[in-house]
Amino acid sequence: MSSTTFNKLVIIGVGLIGGSFALALRKAGAVRRITGVGRSRENMQRALKQGVIDEIAPDMASALHQADFVLLAMPVGQTGSIMAEIAPHLDSNTVISDAGSTKQDVVTAARDHLGENLKNFVPGHPIAGAEQSGVLAAQNDLYAGKHVILTPLAETRTEAVETATALWQACGAKVSQMPVEEHDRILAATSHLPHVLAFALMNHLRNSTDSPESLLRFAGSGFRDFTRIASSSPEMWRDICLANRRALLQELEAFQNELDMLQTLLQEENGNALEQAFIQARRMREDWLNRQD
Amino acid sequence: MSSTTFNKLVIIGVGLIGGSFALALRKAGAVRRITGVGRSRENMQRALKQGVIDEIAPDMASALHQADFVLLAMPVGQTGSIMAEIAPHLDSNTVISDAGSTKQDVVTAARDHLGENLKNFVPGHPIAGAEQSGVLAAQNDLYAGKHVILTPLAETRTEAVETATALWQACGAKVSQMPVEEHDRILAATSHLPHVLAFALMNHLRNSTDSPESLLRFAGSGFRDFTRIASSSPEMWRDICLANRRALLQELEAFQNELDMLQTLLQEENGNALEQAFIQARRMREDWLNRQD
Repeated sequence: MSSTTFNKLVIIGVGLIGGSFALALRKAGAVRRITGVGRSRENMQRALKQGVIDEIAPDMASALHQADFVLLAMPVGQTGSIMAEIAPHLDSNTVISDAGSTKQDVVTAARDHLGENLKNFVPGHPIAGAEQSGVLAAQNDLYAGKHVILTPLAETRTEAVETATALWQACGAKVSQMPVEEHDRILAATSHLPHVLAFALMNHLRNSTDSPESLLRFAGSGFRDFTRIASSSPEMWRDICLANRRALLQELEAFQNELDMLQTLLQEENGNALEQAFIQARRMREDWLNRQD
Repeated sequence: MSSTTFNKLVIIGVGLIGGSFALALRKAGAVRRITGVGRSRENMQRALKQGVIDEIAPDMASALHQADFVLLAMPVGQTGSIMAEIAPHLDSNTVISDAGSTKQDVVTAARDHLGENLKNFVPGHPIAGAEQSGVLAAQNDLYAGKHVILTPLAETRTEAVETATALWQACGAKVSQMPVEEHDRILAATSHLPHVLAFALMNHLRNSTDSPESLLRFAGSGFRDFTRIASSSPEMWRDICLANRRALLQELEAFQNELDMLQTLLQEENGNALEQAFIQARRMREDWLNRQD
């Protein structure tokens, strides 16, 4: 399977994620022809000119005709409508996958729209990306050494999972599998919650001053690192928060309990307990760092 | 004043902060002799061997004898006891400054202990540093291009402020002045609160799982940046939180209101309001980035 070259790859949404997938597979010699589908004529022309794709599909029917693999890489808010659009045109052997940061909502949309083609659907999430977006930011090594999580359904054909796995591995990624719920909970905790906290901090600072310049003038490297994710796409993060709402609300509630506890220790001037809490926090992070490659 | 070379500089607490101050001033040719005072014999020997200091003082009296400038750079929790120790031995012209991350508590200790020498005390805070600590981490360019905030008291002599300013500028730093309360509020908002949030997140994650390895296995670069400050010294941050308790509690309360608001928007599935909040947060950060050098 790993040496199979696919004839036709279709990328729906040729931005950073979809474009980098295309470039990586082209570099690996894993696909012969790449077809792009997208909303913005300007972006699609750019993708063509950059050599990210070989052709722009005029419509979904021609896009999907004899497609071996389709990657849904448009903003996750469009998942339902895109799935409804592709469903009538899918071949019985075409493997469909996605790249969304949340999986339960994607799976629900797939169950709603894909019908018999559900067995060819491999929900996926490449844990990669950058603050930039758009096809100009696409790189052929974006996924090298990065994690990709697949959350196949009970209905998903084994061959479809193997195909998706092989393609992501050809991009240099490390592919894992887990249940949908576990994915959404883990991502809520380690990615979605931190983003909400960073957004909340910036808004808190904004509301607390008439002079952001004065307040932030002396903010240092710690602030820069902590708030980096607050520079993320508001549109994308609105969609992620809404899509993963339940898991995120659970994380938020539990986090607030933790914060309340620290607040109480501070009110009580309990230096020992504060220090213990900070020691445990640091140890957890240091253990994680040591496990990194 | 800027071309004055000082005879004797005393550093109390020769770690990253005090050691880097010494190295920078030696490089600038701004001091002739540097005397170190510290708890750990091993650390002091190391500082001597590294050339960070010229001599280890056997006691406080000899350390402060004919000192031109004294920098208090030991952990802030020791401020009161150190000030009590130095007070009897200060010359009437010796300028005293500190490097603590909080200022009100330092000022209170100075008022309690320095007596007539209060007029020579220039509370200061270099906004610099790294996760590392100890004299082995000291660098002669740690303060280059960094901000130093001085919070002189009404009692502080102008010449003392000018001396402290000149020395920090000789280290390459940009020196500003502001009232004590403003400093503590700004630092609570932009530094102390984020640290508490990062510690709280790590503890929340720790409490939410039997398997930190599984939970954090897929944590990416966003998580790494956001939690970087959770690797900070627990002892130092216990002291900072306790020292700046009032300002920090105010920030915590206001932050929690902001977080509650986002939580409500999420519960109500108010995508528009969430997006607006994220747009404002990002804009605040982008404006700040654009103002950076």
